[in-house]
Amino acid sequence: MKSEILKMLRETGGYISGQEISEKLHVSRTAVWKVIRQLQEEGYQVEAVRNKGYRMTDSPDVMSREELESLMRTRWAGKNIVYYDVTDSTNLRIRELGDQGAPHGTLAAADRQTAGRGRRGRAWESPPGASIYMSILLRPDIPPDKAPMLTLVMALSVAEGIGQSMEQTQPEIQIKWPNDIIINGKKLAGILTEMSTQVDFINHVTIGVGINVNITEFPEEIRSTASSLCLEYGHKVRRAPVIAAVMERLEENYETFLKTQDLSGLMEKYSSLLVNKDRDVLILGAREQYQAHALGINRMGELIVRREDGTLEVVYAGEVSVRGVYGYI
Amino acid sequence: MKSEILKMLRETGGYISGQEISEKLHVSRTAVWKVIRQLQEEGYQVEAVRNKGYRMTDSPDVMSREELESLMRTRWAGKNIVYYDVTDSTNLRIRELGDQGAPHGTLAAADRQTAGRGRRGRAWESPPGASIYMSILLRPDIPPDKAPMLTLVMALSVAEGIGQSMEQTQPEIQIKWPNDIIINGKKLAGILTEMSTQVDFINHVTIGVGINVNITEFPEEIRSTASSLCLEYGHKVRRAPVIAAVMERLEENYETFLKTQDLSGLMEKYSSLLVNKDRDVLILGAREQYQAHALGINRMGELIVRREDGTLEVVYAGEVSVRGVYGYI
Repeated sequence: MKSEILKMLRETGGYISGQEISEKLHVSRTAVWKVIRQLQEEGYQVEAVRNKGYRMTDSPDVMSREELESLMRTRWAGKNIVYYDVTDSTNLRIRELGDQGAPHGTLAAADRQTAGRGRRGRAWESPPGASIYMSILLRPDIPPDKAPMLTLVMALSVAEGIGQSMEQTQPEIQIKWPNDIIINGKKLAGILTEMSTQVDFINHVTIGVGINVNITEFPEEIRSTASSLCLEYGHKVRRAPVIAAVMERLEENYETFLKTQDLSGLMEKYSSLLVNKDRDVLILGAREQYQAHALGINRMGELIVRREDGTLEVVYAGEVSVRGVYGYI
Repeated sequence: MKSEILKMLRETGGYISGQEISEKLHVSRTAVWKVIRQLQEEGYQVEAVRNKGYRMTDSPDVMSREELESLMRTRWAGKNIVYYDVTDSTNLRIRELGDQGAPHGTLAAADRQTAGRGRRGRAWESPPGASIYMSILLRPDIPPDKAPMLTLVMALSVAEGIGQSMEQTQPEIQIKWPNDIIINGKKLAGILTEMSTQVDFINHVTIGVGINVNITEFPEEIRSTASSLCLEYGHKVRRAPVIAAVMERLEENYETFLKTQDLSGLMEKYSSLLVNKDRDVLILGAREQYQAHALGINRMGELIVRREDGTLEVVYAGEVSVRGVYGYI
């Protein structure tokens, strides 16, 4: 009921009477009043004016299942929500929920992670209150070798979703191929895709997203390459609306992806946000390292680059890293 | 201590004195005597003769961690053992243990499964006391696209391990490509490989094995294509020694596989056990179905077949099924 009342307060914008809420939800006015009190205690600014009703004037940066539910406008992405004040890692939670049969689109979000992980098992710093830690469960009926493209679908959705939920359009949110999210040339968010497969069949895919939202201090070793929404936009940012916006973009982009089982419907949007596009990059492969000019991605999500001798190459995310010629991008 | 005493009784063959056991294990003779009593209660036939000591004359079909430990002669395969009288599925248990950081080679075995699964989520019948249900955790440092070959490594190990633990050599244990285990033309065991991966990195691989040991009744729909060790050899078979033998073969075959990260060191042995070899098979692909003559596998584990027009093809397990021209094999 709390998420429904939150949703009504938000959608009304102005005043809504306790009578109207109680009729719509088939609960007593006392029950409505109790929930309003709870919301106020949690930090929501809800005015109560005699003969007018309730009006929400401000929302704090609340993270809770109810807050997320009240903001979610999707059909399946993030409709089933599990929220943790603290957990080991949302990717581990989603993998476990996936093994237990949780539905496609299940979202796990946490305020704090005690064992956040990046690629290849590297640690991912996860302080409380300052970041988004979320993972979504997908059950695509596609061959396992096509699943890595979902990482790029998520990267696009994160970049679009963050951009959409900010009031200003600058600085722009961009993508560093294949799946880092960039703001002002620094890393804003990372994505970790894991999957459980059989030889020719996907059990489930877990895509974890970590977004630096209100962090203002980074460890020494990443200070020059990492940033946050708060640092770049100059004000605190509410996390739940960002999550809801990412889910909305993901739902649409995923459905576009599934139609062709490749990125042909998304590669234009993706390439337009690509920070590497039309820049010189270093391609760091296992056998070979070379400088090239990045042109965009193809429908498989591979990066197309032009070597110095003019030949075109496609590079696959599993095989190489890409760096800027002068640093991170 | 129980598994150590079991091991000593087995390895001695004849009599071993309580004094000797208590000295070797640094425990009191009363403690030794208590364990011997326990073993007798569990059904082990242990004679106690004054001035001679203890002697084990017969082992029942006990499944327990101690029984398995007392039989294991490996360095890592099945050295860390988790045993369940009943569990949902040993593959699910191992996937969870893998997520929690359990070591390479961890073995889960169960007397009964309530949610045994075959490929693509199909149910796998798992009555108690009659079969082997086990799964092993592997942490190979190889690219994810090479992991499907591990299924064939396990198929070879299961066929060899069963063969080695039986006293008679006939009927022979064979393999139906890629990973069904066959006896007298009927299915004796199945293998289900699952893995948890990142784009270019394996978190862990779970290989589950179900072996029909003492089952004598099968459901109507598989009666003509399934059999058990008991039915084919005409006597009850102890499960724990079969498991230990499979682990022993796996340890050696896995290490051979890792040297080249392919099946070049195993394909000859595998092909020699291949029931399809030199037989006509039906290749059932998504787009095409045709009859061909099976020749063996290559070092990638693909089946090499000769079409009726004489051309050679390699078929990949993820893409096709293989049937006999006149039925299951």
